[in-house]
Amino acid sequence: MIHTAREVAQYLGVELEGDPAAPISGVASPERASREDLIYVDSWRHLGRAAASRARCLLVKPEMSLSGKTLLRAANPKLALAKAAAWLLPPAPITQGVHPTAIVSSSARLGAGVGIGPYAVIEDGVEIGAGTEVAAFCFLGRGSRLGENCRLHPRVTLYAGVQLADRVVVHAGTVIGSDGFGYVFGEGRHWKFPQLGRVEIAEDVEIGANTTIDRGALETTEIGAGVRIDNLVQVAHNVTIGEHTVVAAQTGISGSTEIGSHVIIGGQVGIADHCRIEDGAVAGAQAGIPTGKTIRKGQTVWGTPARPLAKFKEQYAWFARLPELAERLRKLEGGRSED
Amino acid sequence: MIHTAREVAQYLGVELEGDPAAPISGVASPERASREDLIYVDSWRHLGRAAASRARCLLVKPEMSLSGKTLLRAANPKLALAKAAAWLLPPAPITQGVHPTAIVSSSARLGAGVGIGPYAVIEDGVEIGAGTEVAAFCFLGRGSRLGENCRLHPRVTLYAGVQLADRVVVHAGTVIGSDGFGYVFGEGRHWKFPQLGRVEIAEDVEIGANTTIDRGALETTEIGAGVRIDNLVQVAHNVTIGEHTVVAAQTGISGSTEIGSHVIIGGQVGIADHCRIEDGAVAGAQAGIPTGKTIRKGQTVWGTPARPLAKFKEQYAWFARLPELAERLRKLEGGRSED
Amino acid sequence: MIHTAREVAQYLGVELEGDPAAPISGVASPERASREDLIYVDSWRHLGRAAASRARCLLVKPEMSLSGKTLLRAANPKLALAKAAAWLLPPAPITQGVHPTAIVSSSARLGAGVGIGPYAVIEDGVEIGAGTEVAAFCFLGRGSRLGENCRLHPRVTLYAGVQLADRVVVHAGTVIGSDGFGYVFGEGRHWKFPQLGRVEIAEDVEIGANTTIDRGALETTEIGAGVRIDNLVQVAHNVTIGEHTVVAAQTGISGSTEIGSHVIIGGQVGIADHCRIEDGAVAGAQAGIPTGKTIRKGQTVWGTPARPLAKFKEQYAWFARLPELAERLRKLEGGRSED
Repeated sequence: MIHTAREVAQYLGVELEGDPAAPISGVASPERASREDLIYVDSWRHLGRAAASRARCLLVKPEMSLSGKTLLRAANPKLALAKAAAWLLPPAPITQGVHPTAIVSSSARLGAGVGIGPYAVIEDGVEIGAGTEVAAFCFLGRGSRLGENCRLHPRVTLYAGVQLADRVVVHAGTVIGSDGFGYVFGEGRHWKFPQLGRVEIAEDVEIGANTTIDRGALETTEIGAGVRIDNLVQVAHNVTIGEHTVVAAQTGISGSTEIGSHVIIGGQVGIADHCRIEDGAVAGAQAGIPTGKTIRKGQTVWGTPARPLAKFKEQYAWFARLPELAERLRKLEGGRSED
Repeated sequence: MIHTAREVAQYLGVELEGDPAAPISGVASPERASREDLIYVDSWRHLGRAAASRARCLLVKPEMSLSGKTLLRAANPKLALAKAAAWLLPPAPITQGVHPTAIVSSSARLGAGVGIGPYAVIEDGVEIGAGTEVAAFCFLGRGSRLGENCRLHPRVTLYAGVQLADRVVVHAGTVIGSDGFGYVFGEGRHWKFPQLGRVEIAEDVEIGANTTIDRGALETTEIGAGVRIDNLVQVAHNVTIGEHTVVAAQTGISGSTEIGSHVIIGGQVGIADHCRIEDGAVAGAQAGIPTGKTIRKGQTVWGTPARPLAKFKEQYAWFARLPELAERLRKLEGGRSED
Repeated sequence: MIHTAREVAQYLGVELEGDPAAPISGVASPERASREDLIYVDSWRHLGRAAASRARCLLVKPEMSLSGKTLLRAANPKLALAKAAAWLLPPAPITQGVHPTAIVSSSARLGAGVGIGPYAVIEDGVEIGAGTEVAAFCFLGRGSRLGENCRLHPRVTLYAGVQLADRVVVHAGTVIGSDGFGYVFGEGRHWKFPQLGRVEIAEDVEIGANTTIDRGALETTEIGAGVRIDNLVQVAHNVTIGEHTVVAAQTGISGSTEIGSHVIIGGQVGIADHCRIEDGAVAGAQAGIPTGKTIRKGQTVWGTPARPLAKFKEQYAWFARLPELAERLRKLEGGRSED
C-alpha cells in the first residue's frame, strides 16, 4: 500500500518540507532505496549518502536541509523510521485456522483468529489467545498459556505450564521452561534439585532464536514487559528481568539473579547467580559479574570481574603501560633493561 | 499422594521432632509453601523465613530448633529435600506406546513400555530400551541406541550411531552427534577432515536444552556416568568427560580435551583443544584455558588465561591498584601526578 | 569399496614405498585402525603410535621412514588423509524423492534427484537445486532458495527468502534468517527497527549445529564461499564474512561487522558492531573486539579488548609479575612488605 509523504508526516506528527504528494511505499537504506522508499539520516556524516540515494523522501533531524529531496523533520529520525516502517509494512496477516497436520488436544482452548501451523503439537489444557500464530513444529506443553496476538516462529518449544502474555514474539528454536540446572552434591553424585517452578513472560516481549529460558526451581522465572532478548541467550531458573530491559546475544544469566528495568546487557555477558542488577544499569559486552554482586542503579560496568567503566578504563590504560612502568621501576632501581 | 512426616523421615533416615502425622504432599520455597509442603533451611540466616512460612514441616540442620514446626533433622537439608522431592513427586508416568504419527523404521527395536511421541522419526536399526520416552519431534538417526528409562524431551536430534546408556535425560533442542569442526587447510581452502567417530553417553547423565555434542573425528566423544551438562554448551569432537562432572551453561570444550571426574566447570568457560582437566578440578565462570594446558587434580583456576585462584586474586588485587602503583612510581621519580 | 595403496597414492599424487597391492578400505586413528585403514603421521613424535598401529598403510612426511609399513609420502599427510577419506568414503547417497509426510507447496520448484525428508515443510515459491537433501523437520520459509547438492540436516529452519548457493551443508537445529536484534529506544520503550533484509550464503559453506544467522535489517547478511562456521555461533544482521574464513564455536559477531577472507576466529570470540576484520587476520579464543575497531590484514589479536598478540603476551607477562613489581616498588619506598 502506498502512502504520500504528507500522510507519513501526519502519521508521525512531524514537519514536512517538499512535495507532500511524493509516494512512499517502504523503507530502505540510502544505497538500496528506490524512489518510493523512505530513508533516514541522523548524522551530518551520512548526509552525502542520503543526497546520492534514489529515495525522494528523507527523515532528517530538524536542523538538516538537503535540496532536491522531500524532508520529514523528526527529533529522532531513526525512531521515526522504525515507526513509519511498522505502519507502512505491517506484518503479513497470519494464516488463520488449524493446519490439518497440527495435533491439538481436545482440552486446548483457542481464541478467535488463531493460526496453528503444520505439525504443531498442542497438549492438554493449553490456552491460546485471539490472533496468535503458532508456526510449524512448535510444541506447547501441557497447560501452557499464550496471550493474544503472539507470534511463535517455527520450532519453539514451551514446556508444561509456561505463560506468555499478549504480543510476545519468540523466534525459531527457542526453548522456554526447560529444567533449571540445579543439583545438590552428596554421596558422590549430583542429585537433581526439584525444578517445579514456572516461567511467566509479560506482554510485548521479543525473544530471539535458539535461546533457552529455564523454569524456576521452587520459584518463578519472570521476564517483564517490553524486554528484548537476543539469540542464544541463557536465562536460568528463578531469574527475574524487569521491564524494557535489553539482553544481547549469547549472554548468560545464572540462577536467582534479579535484573531491573531498562537495563542494557551487552553480548556474551556472564552474570553469576544471586546478583542484583538495578534499574538502568549497563553491562558492557563480555563483562563478568561475580556471584552475589550488586550493580547499582544507572551504573555502567565493564570487564571481568565487572567494575565501573571509568575505573575499568583507568586500570586498563595502566595495564597497557605495564611494560613501561616496569622499565621505569628498573631504572629507579639502577638496573639495566630486562630484555 | 500424601505422606506423613514420619514416613518422609523414615524414607530419608532422619530424626523427627514434632507431629509425626503431619501430612506432606510436596516441596516448596518458604514463601510459596502451603501447609503440606516440605521446606528446607540450611542456614541460620534463613530460619526467619522458615518460621514465617505456612509450611508445617521443615528439613533443618541437626543443631537447629524452631518451635511450632515439625522438624526433620538432616546433615544436609537441601540434599534431603532433593531426595524427598524425587520420592514425593515422581515424574508423571510416560505415555506408553507409539503415537500414530511417529515414523518408526521396521528395523528399529523398541523395549517394553516405551513411549514415542507425535512426529518423532526413528530411523533404521535404532534400539530403544524399556521405559524410555522419546518426545515429539525427536529424530533418532540410523543405528542410534538408547538405554532404559531415558527421557528425550521434544526436538532432540541424535545423528546416526549415537549411544545413550540408561536413565539419560536430554532437554529440548539438543543435538548430539553432529560433525566435529575439523578441517585441514591446503590449496587455499579448508578440507573437511573425516568426522567418522561416535558419541557414547553413560548412564544417569542429564543434558540441558539447545546444547551441541559433536561426534568424534576418528575417535569417540565420551560423556561419563552422572555428568550434568547445562544449556547451550558446546562439546567438540573427541572430548572425554569423566563421571559426575558438572558443566554450566554456554561453556565450550574444544577438540580432544580430556576432563576428569568430579570436575566443576562454571558458565561460559572456554577450554581449548588438547587440554587435560584432572579429577576434582574447578574452573571459575568465564575462565579461558589455553591449548594443551593441564589443570592439576583438585586445582581451582580462574581468569583468562586461567591460573590458580589464589594467584588470580593476588594479581587482580594489584591490577585494581595499578593507578595507585603508577602514582607511587611517579613520586619516587620526583615527578608530578600524570593527570 | 576397497582400493589398493597404489590407487590411493595415484589419486593423491604422492610417492609410494612398500606394497602397492596393500588394500585400503577406510581411514582411522593409529589406535583404532584395522589393517586396511589408512592412518597419517605428521610429526616424529607420533611415529611410535603409527609403528604400533595395526594399519599397514601410512601417510607420512617425505622425510619419514618406518620399516614394515607401506608408506605414502605427502607434503601434508593430514591434508592427504582428508582427501583420501573423501574419496574412499563418499557420503551415503541421499534418499531421493519427497517423503509422503513432507508438506511441499505446489509453487515450490524441486530439481532432479532432490530428497525431502519426513515432516519437512516447504513453503510457497521455494526453489531447491538438483541433488539437494532436506532432512526431517526442516522448515524452508516462503521464497527461500537452495542451490544444488546442499545438505540440510534435521531441523534446520530457513526464514523467508534465505538463499543458499551450491553445496552448502547446515547442521541440525540451525536457524538462518531470523530477525536481527535491532531496536530504537524512545518514549520509554524499544521500538523494533525494520528487519527486512536478506541472507545470502555462498557455495561450499558448512555451518554447525544450533547456530543462528540473522537476516539483514535494511541490508544483506552475507557469508562467502568456503566459510566454516561451528556450533552455537551468532551472526547478527548485516554482517559480511569473506571467503574461506573460519569461525569457531560460540563466537558472536555483532551487527554490520565486516570480516574479510581467510580470517580465523577462535571460539567464544565476541566481535562488536561495525568492526572491520581484514583478510587473513586471526582472533584468539575469547578475544573481545570493541565497537568500530579495525583489525589489520594478517594481524593476530588476543584478549579483551583485543590487541596484537605480541603486545598481549608482554602485558600479561607483567600482569603475572604485578605482585613482584609492587614489592620492588615498596622496597624502593623504603617500606616493609605489604602482607
